[in-house]
Amino acid sequence: MKLYFLHYLSIGTLVISSLFPSVATANIEVPPANGIALPENYKDWRVISMSHRTDNKTVRVILGNDIAIKAARAKQTNPWPDGTIIGKMVWKEMEKKTWPSAIAPDKFVHAEFMVKDTEKFKDNGTGWGWARWLGTEQKPYGDAKDHDQSCITCHTPVKGNDWVFTTPAPMP
Amino acid sequence: MKLYFLHYLSIGTLVISSLFPSVATANIEVPPANGIALPENYKDWRVISMSHRTDNKTVRVILGNDIAIKAARAKQTNPWPDGTIIGKMVWKEMEKKTWPSAIAPDKFVHAEFMVKDTEKFKDNGTGWGWARWLGTEQKPYGDAKDHDQSCITCHTPVKGNDWVFTTPAPMP
Repeated sequence: MKLYFLHYLSIGTLVISSLFPSVATANIEVPPANGIALPENYKDWRVISMSHRTDNKTVRVILGNDIAIKAARAKQTNPWPDGTIIGKMVWKEMEKKTWPSAIAPDKFVHAEFMVKDTEKFKDNGTGWGWARWLGTEQKPYGDAKDHDQSCITCHTPVKGNDWVFTTPAPMP
Repeated sequence: MKLYFLHYLSIGTLVISSLFPSVATANIEVPPANGIALPENYKDWRVISMSHRTDNKTVRVILGNDIAIKAARAKQTNPWPDGTIIGKMVWKEMEKKTWPSAIAPDKFVHAEFMVKDTEKFKDNGTGWGWARWLGTEQKPYGDAKDHDQSCITCHTPVKGNDWVFTTPAPMP
């Protein structure tokens, strides 16, 4: 009985998907950036740290996938292990109306990621893949070659820290 | 057979706990603050927002339990639903050596929580329980009555926002 029900449900889903193909895919798929897929459910990842860049007036939360969090808590982050993904959610800064000396997130600027795979990304010299998606619409940013190089140039001062600016925030 | 095993395990645990009472409890139990238990695994919670308080030179990440995250994403936060717990992890601010115009977390200051339970906390007039634990050692802060009142006094400007300063950060 249960199986029959599931069978009819599948046919129903198929019919609905055929009728509304764009609706069925629009919220599910975001194009890859720099050959890298947008990490799934990254908004649900745990916190590694945060930062406030006063030079470009943005605030950030730095998140990690499970491998990154395990490494951060074990203080094994130079190098970060293969499989690590570090994600940054970046917002424009805003003064809080209810507490004017506090800075808080305004508009969402982009989400950017470093994906550690020493084999897959050995050709760019860092062992990391680099990718960014712009805005809440998550538009892929940059073309493959240039995007890598602009990321790597900026991260060169922290080459000795496995190319990563973030230091995991101390936690209880 | 399984039951016998569990029985022997319990006796074993009891013996070990008696031999090393402080070791056995130190990492497991943190005393309640203001009558509220330290929320379990709060470091694993998802992000609601962040802030930088330039007045007292601290930076913060604001996390939520599952009920809080669901409410934040559905934009149903005035009032927040019963069962919500909002947690703030607070650090002293520090200039990043590798990017001097960026501010990042230094020493961990405290973790503080607002626990929504309109029935349990109706007597303080807010429907929220208020609690804070100091430092990485998570020492409970304040005594019941005074602690509530100092929290509530400070949060009075946001009484119309269900006593909460945080606005969930926009996300994709």
